[in-house]
Amino acid sequence: MNETNTPTRTQLPEPTLRRLPWYLAYVRMLDGQNVKFVSSTHISKALSVDSSQIAKDLSFLNVKGKTRIGYEVKSLMATLADFLGFTVPHSAVVIGAGSLGRALIADVGLSQYGLQIVAGFDTDADIVGTTVDGVKIYHVDALQQWQLEHNADIAILSVPIEVAQQMADAVVESGFRAMWNFTPVRIKTPPRIAIANTSIYAHLAIIYNRMNAAGDKPVI
Amino acid sequence: MNETNTPTRTQLPEPTLRRLPWYLAYVRMLDGQNVKFVSSTHISKALSVDSSQIAKDLSFLNVKGKTRIGYEVKSLMATLADFLGFTVPHSAVVIGAGSLGRALIADVGLSQYGLQIVAGFDTDADIVGTTVDGVKIYHVDALQQWQLEHNADIAILSVPIEVAQQMADAVVESGFRAMWNFTPVRIKTPPRIAIANTSIYAHLAIIYNRMNAAGDKPVI
Repeated sequence: MNETNTPTRTQLPEPTLRRLPWYLAYVRMLDGQNVKFVSSTHISKALSVDSSQIAKDLSFLNVKGKTRIGYEVKSLMATLADFLGFTVPHSAVVIGAGSLGRALIADVGLSQYGLQIVAGFDTDADIVGTTVDGVKIYHVDALQQWQLEHNADIAILSVPIEVAQQMADAVVESGFRAMWNFTPVRIKTPPRIAIANTSIYAHLAIIYNRMNAAGDKPVI
Repeated sequence: MNETNTPTRTQLPEPTLRRLPWYLAYVRMLDGQNVKFVSSTHISKALSVDSSQIAKDLSFLNVKGKTRIGYEVKSLMATLADFLGFTVPHSAVVIGAGSLGRALIADVGLSQYGLQIVAGFDTDADIVGTTVDGVKIYHVDALQQWQLEHNADIAILSVPIEVAQQMADAVVESGFRAMWNFTPVRIKTPPRIAIANTSIYAHLAIIYNRMNAAGDKPVI
């Protein structure tokens, strides 16, 4: 399908993109245990992913295991982190510095995955002008001008549902290329905007449902 | 397939469970705008979900729209919130009170979706014994005894990848029924444990990839 020779620029299928971080987490763990090589059979067993699927996923990275030896752990780790974009700094702003937005600003884990939150935006007069972990919170009215001057990569959307689409529109108009939507709202954006949805509250519904369904089964 | 008459206890397909919170967010927004009725065609347009799919999803809740009028907004809102488990309090503990774990404890949004975090667990001597937003942090060695006394519903896993499986095993042994995995590790648990995976860092890979792929296209 794609004839270019630049695998990092291929738009990967989302299931592959969801599995690659599992492989990375796993080889990072192996590296911590001083393991030097790992076979796809081994990864397959550890992660319950079919080994042919693993080989297919890794082929997007031009990574091939050696017969009998498998993949070199350190090299696979570096290639995966690189390929997933975790080694390149990306700048981001948080739109909505409420409870979740502030939590994201405070989460140092994000910076280990290449994300630097450099500013926050809100409408609450009590919040605008303050700083959260050294990150300044501006009024959303200043977003367009701020972005013109700073050209951040990603806007993180963590606003109340009532204003989610409206704030998303403001993000798009301000020239951001990508949006990370933490609201449970199905946001509409032009196709040129890269978007990922992480509705952590929606995931709660999955746990609750699974818990109730499990309760339905007889306990043996 | 399922012959019982208790829809809340049916294990729903995950895609349906991911869409239901969109519908809820949308009707909550409509309710805020004082809209009384909404048709599936209207929901379909707003959320870009096929209207027959919406009808099918809502049939799991025994909700049916009326001809010409559609769904009653307030009633649909209440039914969805109920069905998704957001109106019933669920208790949870956080395993790993690092940056992300503390952020989850501090996020008041979770309580609006029925989740009460009542305790945290860690191994770091500097953290154990402290409180985060009124939530006490215990040593993980005390987890089994604590759970015996408190019987919390859900364990939230936000530990470093190196100890993720080991801590998950401790959670299972302590008698938790459900686990919310925030690590990028593919955790192995017995089938009786309800599990949801929310690897927010893995979602970053999706945005990064989409951004790069978009950059590949000619700008018109």
